[in-house]
Amino acid sequence: MTLPTFLSLPERSTKPRTVGLTHVLDKGMTPESAQSALATAARFIDVWKFGWGTAYIDTALPDKLAMLKDYGIHACLGGTLLEISWAQGKAQDCLDWAADVGFDTVEVSRGVAPMTLGDKHDLLRRAAAAFVVLSEVGNKDPEKVLTPEQWTAEVASDLTAGANWVITEGRESGTVGIYRADGSIREDVVAAAVLGGGIERVLFEAPRKDQQAWLIREFGCDVNLANIPADEVPALETLRLGLRADTCDLTRQWQPA
Amino acid sequence: MTLPTFLSLPERSTKPRTVGLTHVLDKGMTPESAQSALATAARFIDVWKFGWGTAYIDTALPDKLAMLKDYGIHACLGGTLLEISWAQGKAQDCLDWAADVGFDTVEVSRGVAPMTLGDKHDLLRRAAAAFVVLSEVGNKDPEKVLTPEQWTAEVASDLTAGANWVITEGRESGTVGIYRADGSIREDVVAAAVLGGGIERVLFEAPRKDQQAWLIREFGCDVNLANIPADEVPALETLRLGLRADTCDLTRQWQPA
Amino acid sequence: MTLPTFLSLPERSTKPRTVGLTHVLDKGMTPESAQSALATAARFIDVWKFGWGTAYIDTALPDKLAMLKDYGIHACLGGTLLEISWAQGKAQDCLDWAADVGFDTVEVSRGVAPMTLGDKHDLLRRAAAAFVVLSEVGNKDPEKVLTPEQWTAEVASDLTAGANWVITEGRESGTVGIYRADGSIREDVVAAAVLGGGIERVLFEAPRKDQQAWLIREFGCDVNLANIPADEVPALETLRLGLRADTCDLTRQWQPA
Repeated sequence: MTLPTFLSLPERSTKPRTVGLTHVLDKGMTPESAQSALATAARFIDVWKFGWGTAYIDTALPDKLAMLKDYGIHACLGGTLLEISWAQGKAQDCLDWAADVGFDTVEVSRGVAPMTLGDKHDLLRRAAAAFVVLSEVGNKDPEKVLTPEQWTAEVASDLTAGANWVITEGRESGTVGIYRADGSIREDVVAAAVLGGGIERVLFEAPRKDQQAWLIREFGCDVNLANIPADEVPALETLRLGLRADTCDLTRQWQPA
Repeated sequence: MTLPTFLSLPERSTKPRTVGLTHVLDKGMTPESAQSALATAARFIDVWKFGWGTAYIDTALPDKLAMLKDYGIHACLGGTLLEISWAQGKAQDCLDWAADVGFDTVEVSRGVAPMTLGDKHDLLRRAAAAFVVLSEVGNKDPEKVLTPEQWTAEVASDLTAGANWVITEGRESGTVGIYRADGSIREDVVAAAVLGGGIERVLFEAPRKDQQAWLIREFGCDVNLANIPADEVPALETLRLGLRADTCDLTRQWQPA
Repeated sequence: MTLPTFLSLPERSTKPRTVGLTHVLDKGMTPESAQSALATAARFIDVWKFGWGTAYIDTALPDKLAMLKDYGIHACLGGTLLEISWAQGKAQDCLDWAADVGFDTVEVSRGVAPMTLGDKHDLLRRAAAAFVVLSEVGNKDPEKVLTPEQWTAEVASDLTAGANWVITEGRESGTVGIYRADGSIREDVVAAAVLGGGIERVLFEAPRKDQQAWLIREFGCDVNLANIPADEVPALETLRLGLRADTCDLTRQWQPA
């Protein structure tokens, strides 16, 4: 089908993208649902994360990894699985298994395990030898809050240690890390993360529409957004393009008809 | 399969309906999911809205429109897309495209664009020449609240201008228009909308179960309800029929066993 | 596919289970979605409840019941449908129909109908003659709160009357019964239910992740959990196994690498 062209819309990057990434969070989709989502929306998806430890119990993993490869989408292992493996002294077993089964990308985080920044960077360097690496900054525990200065320093040092992009923690709920418990945005933390890595190297976890819209209004249609449910990718794309009320600035677009 | 008949249930309208409409909000479903939802629930669905600008980027649009035609369901273009088109001086291009691709219904709203009521009625009349028209009343911005008198007047004048039904704004979230920010119902606004159009011509956006249940208890099983996710249509139908705790009045139904 | 084995995880029961049950709430899934969910996650699912009265209007019911039988999963009729039938003097018609169409399990509750405990036990005994019975304790109306003593007594007497397991009310929303309106856990009620039936005979409705995680941390990976959406079963399994931040206690698991 030929898509319509009668509207003036923002310029949007196309695949393979280095900015404007959409990163999907898969909580355990069936292969049928994944196939259907990809057939519709693969051109909008750059990274597909198998959330936390879901990959470890997913008998359909090879099928899903094969689909992602066909569609030119990075298949990323969840950071929590690698943290748990590290805590059990099995980090290398985990990385070896991930490479064997077909992941090309891993997330390196210290959201739950008692890792020092040095431990994280050691793990990150090990991972970077074989994978595209997304590092994650921010704690999953709402009680453990990093200062803006800590955000800047950790984002910058993760990139120096070899991360390709840095993800800012938000979880599936959008209530920790760069967000307050009510989901509102900690603007100082967002600014601190951008200061540390530059807007093109930061991927914001943004599961909620109001969070996505705020980031798009603030940074433009090609902001990198993460933890998007696969079935909400088309809706996100309309937000990026100003085709939904939350991001269409009709005062500015207005031309006399 | 023969459905069971041992219960006494409220009389429910059947297709093609003029009251008791169920209006689905499609945020970008895959054609596979749409097909599956329709095979199960088409007899309960009267209008299928392609929310905001999702239709503009949907390569599966022709497939989905063909399915809806087969199932005797109105295919409705989202109001925000027409508003954006109008604001760019492209309203007629939008209507022409919608007709070409196979929509039979459009929504005419002024929820985001700076339209006067006169502008809206001009657009509505243009649309009514080629489409079934659902007009929408209410603002998407929670700060911009219409008085009940304004609700009554706009609903009535939209119908006079040619709308087939009037939709009351609630969004996907159910937190604006006829609802407060916490989702509770602005009963004065609901009454004002009904005063303006009559209960049979008003379609209430009601994405949340508590909102659906309230409207069904207030207006009966054949109240017109909008912005229902496709996969929640069977659950809504049980609410309409008094087959769920929220709407089954067992005090009244009680007969000695 | 061979699943990986490099991590130390808690011992988890396998099917056919008598503890560690996962009970799915089906709100009207299409047979295609059900088939896909079962192909992926049937080994994690023990009971599949057709919520409230959805079964009464579901033309795909025989297909879905056949699938569940193939996968060795109990097919359970929703308690509200039996309550409504009872209130209309049609309880036996309802049970006869359920047996004919292929249910092997029914839920017996008094969450909306004006039943005495004696009425409930009569109905429960009638149901137990032909079905596996899950009784439910707790009211769907947040205004009607049972005391902990009433919870203990009703759980215990339901088991004596013939229930195989007792479900504690939480609804699809997780905001009544064993939960407060904000979803937090009424720990005294949970303890009272366990006191009445023993942890192995109580099934906790726990639709929200924070509720599931709390129950798993409190009672271990083989706590019985109910009202899980089918597409969230794999995510729940990772919670049970300590493969998600909310339940992985890395302080305890830690071993020097």
